[in-house]
Amino acid sequence: MELLNTLGVTIDMAVEAHELLRGEAGIEIPGVKVIKDKKENYEITKVEILNEQGAAHLQKPIGNYVTIDAPVLRSQNRTAQKEIMLALANILKTMLTINDERPILIVGLGNWHATPDALGPKVVDNIFVTRHLFNLKHEALSKGFKNVAAISPGVLGITGIETVEIVQGIVEKINPSFVIAVDALAAANVERICSSIQIADTGINPGSGIGNQRPGLNREVLGIPVIAIGCPTVVNAAIIAKNTLEMFLDKFSSSKQFYQFLKARQAGIITLVREVLEPFTNNLTVTPKEIDFLLLNLAKVIAGGITMAVHENVQPENVEIYLN
Amino acid sequence: MELLNTLGVTIDMAVEAHELLRGEAGIEIPGVKVIKDKKENYEITKVEILNEQGAAHLQKPIGNYVTIDAPVLRSQNRTAQKEIMLALANILKTMLTINDERPILIVGLGNWHATPDALGPKVVDNIFVTRHLFNLKHEALSKGFKNVAAISPGVLGITGIETVEIVQGIVEKINPSFVIAVDALAAANVERICSSIQIADTGINPGSGIGNQRPGLNREVLGIPVIAIGCPTVVNAAIIAKNTLEMFLDKFSSSKQFYQFLKARQAGIITLVREVLEPFTNNLTVTPKEIDFLLLNLAKVIAGGITMAVHENVQPENVEIYLN
Amino acid sequence: MELLNTLGVTIDMAVEAHELLRGEAGIEIPGVKVIKDKKENYEITKVEILNEQGAAHLQKPIGNYVTIDAPVLRSQNRTAQKEIMLALANILKTMLTINDERPILIVGLGNWHATPDALGPKVVDNIFVTRHLFNLKHEALSKGFKNVAAISPGVLGITGIETVEIVQGIVEKINPSFVIAVDALAAANVERICSSIQIADTGINPGSGIGNQRPGLNREVLGIPVIAIGCPTVVNAAIIAKNTLEMFLDKFSSSKQFYQFLKARQAGIITLVREVLEPFTNNLTVTPKEIDFLLLNLAKVIAGGITMAVHENVQPENVEIYLN
Amino acid sequence: MELLNTLGVTIDMAVEAHELLRGEAGIEIPGVKVIKDKKENYEITKVEILNEQGAAHLQKPIGNYVTIDAPVLRSQNRTAQKEIMLALANILKTMLTINDERPILIVGLGNWHATPDALGPKVVDNIFVTRHLFNLKHEALSKGFKNVAAISPGVLGITGIETVEIVQGIVEKINPSFVIAVDALAAANVERICSSIQIADTGINPGSGIGNQRPGLNREVLGIPVIAIGCPTVVNAAIIAKNTLEMFLDKFSSSKQFYQFLKARQAGIITLVREVLEPFTNNLTVTPKEIDFLLLNLAKVIAGGITMAVHENVQPENVEIYLN
Repeated sequence: MELLNTLGVTIDMAVEAHELLRGEAGIEIPGVKVIKDKKENYEITKVEILNEQGAAHLQKPIGNYVTIDAPVLRSQNRTAQKEIMLALANILKTMLTINDERPILIVGLGNWHATPDALGPKVVDNIFVTRHLFNLKHEALSKGFKNVAAISPGVLGITGIETVEIVQGIVEKINPSFVIAVDALAAANVERICSSIQIADTGINPGSGIGNQRPGLNREVLGIPVIAIGCPTVVNAAIIAKNTLEMFLDKFSSSKQFYQFLKARQAGIITLVREVLEPFTNNLTVTPKEIDFLLLNLAKVIAGGITMAVHENVQPENVEIYLN
Repeated sequence: MELLNTLGVTIDMAVEAHELLRGEAGIEIPGVKVIKDKKENYEITKVEILNEQGAAHLQKPIGNYVTIDAPVLRSQNRTAQKEIMLALANILKTMLTINDERPILIVGLGNWHATPDALGPKVVDNIFVTRHLFNLKHEALSKGFKNVAAISPGVLGITGIETVEIVQGIVEKINPSFVIAVDALAAANVERICSSIQIADTGINPGSGIGNQRPGLNREVLGIPVIAIGCPTVVNAAIIAKNTLEMFLDKFSSSKQFYQFLKARQAGIITLVREVLEPFTNNLTVTPKEIDFLLLNLAKVIAGGITMAVHENVQPENVEIYLN
Repeated sequence: MELLNTLGVTIDMAVEAHELLRGEAGIEIPGVKVIKDKKENYEITKVEILNEQGAAHLQKPIGNYVTIDAPVLRSQNRTAQKEIMLALANILKTMLTINDERPILIVGLGNWHATPDALGPKVVDNIFVTRHLFNLKHEALSKGFKNVAAISPGVLGITGIETVEIVQGIVEKINPSFVIAVDALAAANVERICSSIQIADTGINPGSGIGNQRPGLNREVLGIPVIAIGCPTVVNAAIIAKNTLEMFLDKFSSSKQFYQFLKARQAGIITLVREVLEPFTNNLTVTPKEIDFLLLNLAKVIAGGITMAVHENVQPENVEIYLN
Repeated sequence: MELLNTLGVTIDMAVEAHELLRGEAGIEIPGVKVIKDKKENYEITKVEILNEQGAAHLQKPIGNYVTIDAPVLRSQNRTAQKEIMLALANILKTMLTINDERPILIVGLGNWHATPDALGPKVVDNIFVTRHLFNLKHEALSKGFKNVAAISPGVLGITGIETVEIVQGIVEKINPSFVIAVDALAAANVERICSSIQIADTGINPGSGIGNQRPGLNREVLGIPVIAIGCPTVVNAAIIAKNTLEMFLDKFSSSKQFYQFLKARQAGIITLVREVLEPFTNNLTVTPKEIDFLLLNLAKVIAGGITMAVHENVQPENVEIYLN
């Protein structure tokens, strides 16, 4: 993880930061509690960062990070995907407290012009927005629906404005009880691309997301709870380079001696990885060709999970009719 | 105009409100000054509302409303369209005072999913955004460029949030020296569709725009000057019905007596127009089939006009390279 | 109808051509059989053009034109909308004979850049395409699925190629057993906008559709059956003008004499309508402001109806998971 | 190159196939002639495959492959980009013979839903289409314009139809004198992403493009000349893995002996690269985060180059007004 840090690569998912550290250290990480729960079609890993020590190790704020790993999200098996939708709804319900007097704000982070970064906007496109109907006391709304607003603020390169500035401004105007922020993440492991969902009660924190200068979107900044839902849609190309080298060293260098030789040359490895990725260095992402199809399914699953978590009236039987 | 008011139809363009009133009254409107300037490819009409009396007559705030009427905007004559772009830039320059310390915020109002209402977002897509480069003190920016941010906030039906709430929030965060708001308008006259541009130093005011519940976006609300650029892309269908009736009465009722008979039955006319438009009443718009092509040109002309007005370095010779 | 013809307005829907003619004549139209079936949420009208006489009257080819009128399509009542989806599937099943050896081609007509004309492309975006999986003998395909291809060929103004040339070319290459063509129509009555679906076994015929120079897409041209599914999304503005006048005459001219006076001046009415619509004449369409929302629902209903009609494995319980 | 072949990676660009082979062999490749021409802002490399021997070496058909390498395409320097536009137009002019009686067909290959694959459709969106105006003998067309049609046929996963089937069908209907096909390519070298344009008079051939099952689009299949314009927008992730290993071996294995050891284990390297990329293997692409911005510029440059090559009336001074 140190090597990745030096390369400027952030580990977005707590579960991966934990795997990397434990793998390297071979011991439990102090200040971190991990619980796994395996089902037929998916596995849930709850990483709880208990204190500052754990936070320092995983380089993430104290809080809960629940990951659903479900390779079935990459398949055409929509029945199994509905299970994931429900699992997501259930995890969200444990994290959020709905206040009937104030709206809920859903924020779709990312750039709608770049497919792997468009997850947040695509989810927002599928969100059943009701705040304007509540304001009009609209008859179509029976009990069992909540007051929901949603926005995709775009990215700095499009608007010239930091996402957090836009969201902060809106939060001050509409006074939501909490924010759910949806974002595309970068994975450390190719296998997690479009097959994992992380739900964190700590919001979005500096260094997260594909764009690494994105500032935080969390309780400190907004003054209200922020639940972050993130899915890895890419892997940083530097990780491919690094993984290749490490796998190579593991496999081909039978002699421990050679391995030591290389470890001593970590700086050299970094230079090498940078050269391979010139002139883009830390700016190259790896993504599957069929990313557009994968995102369609993912966006439905996440929008459906949010909708079921928020509105009591939306159930597995009728959730699809609330997705656009 | 009274009849239109009763039908719930707003006259977005000051020049049309003036034409309607003068036509009906046959006399000058007190409190309003109108100056026309005719060129080969376009005509500029400046309607100045001088005082509360004028404001009451035209049902618009005191201020300046400059309209460029240019049927050439509907043609393929891009050389003439460039003249309009330059005319727009020159009008804008007379209205705005650029402050080098604070950004300029361009707001694209309207719904990107409904072609005739997508003018604002299309203009924003073509705006050369620089604020993030200024914040990074980016080398690519030589002198002669200004600090510009731009956003399309969407519409209430998509976000559940009033446009003005979003813009107000952003204005409080980034503190621009002024706002330029671009919006699609409804014309009173079919001939103005996609061939007129209104520039007003009074911002966007209640009752304007295609969606008539849109609240104001003006100096009172935002605390800074708001220049509104509007183009009619539709005519309210009620106007088509009303115009048909009036034209019919003008032409076919030779006897003055018959005309009087009808005037007395204005309420009946209103009922009739409403019946023709059932079940949509005031919610039907009339738009040309080729609206998508017409908007492409218009969006370029407006984005180009804004860009030339704002950045000294952008000139008629190089403006196209700053449009996306 | 004669007056509309002179104005260059085509009546796309057989049920409306029939209503107009019967209304005017007050008698049965020879060569045309009409059966109505009323349900709680919708009404089905089957217009059967039996022979050349009927065809001449309604100005449409001999064949079956089934219309579902369902104002609930404009509401948020998605349970009722699912009934319409099923009704559409059942009507389609009576018209098509599936050949397991040859694919089915779904064609989405219209311009994706102009919201009211984008119905066809939006339906195609929601179609579950399988032909490439069949060609690969893909394991994901169990029995009960059919071989489906789908394309949105765009419009003449975008490609420079007539839609029919593109479809003909593709039909010759992939040899489908039949074509289902989806298109936005123009209604004669505002009430039918986004609330009716016409299913015709005669394909798309000259004069139909919003763009009136669109050539035929039918068995004569393609050599295979063409089922056309059309929804009115606009009304020609000339109809608004004409209806206003007629309603006015009905209501205000108590004396039969005045009516005769006007009838004698039909040419004058035409001139008048044309003047009201200058400079667009026959090129102005009337559409609701919320057309984007209305189309979202409609596209789902139509795509769902087609999918259930075609694939045995798709049922009302699971149809949503096959829509994108 | 053998190793890449075994990994299932195709080298789309002739200039890169040549570089790889020459690098490995250290000698001239028989049957291939290469000429370079360096300018301030770009370099042109003409690879001429003279005979079957050259074709076998480079795994490409006999013909001309001209590459413009211009890192300035990734910058904001639009003046320099205009030079590239002109260079492209000049290369195209040497390859195409315009027949005034028959149209020119521009085909935009690729998937508009996946940003790095959307180059072709984006270019087509910017093409000035005239065929329908020619058919109407439209007055707006003076001499100096040619008859141009354009289409983006989509990809197999969207339509269920092979691109070549669609294009073949259209070619048979509209009988163009030649086709210009625009496509996104995969580079072997990260430095070429969004900074190179290859123009080939051999069309698109099996194995080219991001999707490697795409069949050929060439004179053999279509019966008319096909000029292919391709830009690399991605690198196959397997190449990143392979390059990392090779660079590592070059740098760190001072002893020739170690290198031999590895060469002998090429099969092992392949297994290793595949493991790193599991479960996607050959289906992962590497692309810059800012791909959406890079494509905007590229699409303008290519559309402008085509437009200037085709229409005499379009010159560097006025080309922008013909781009949408």
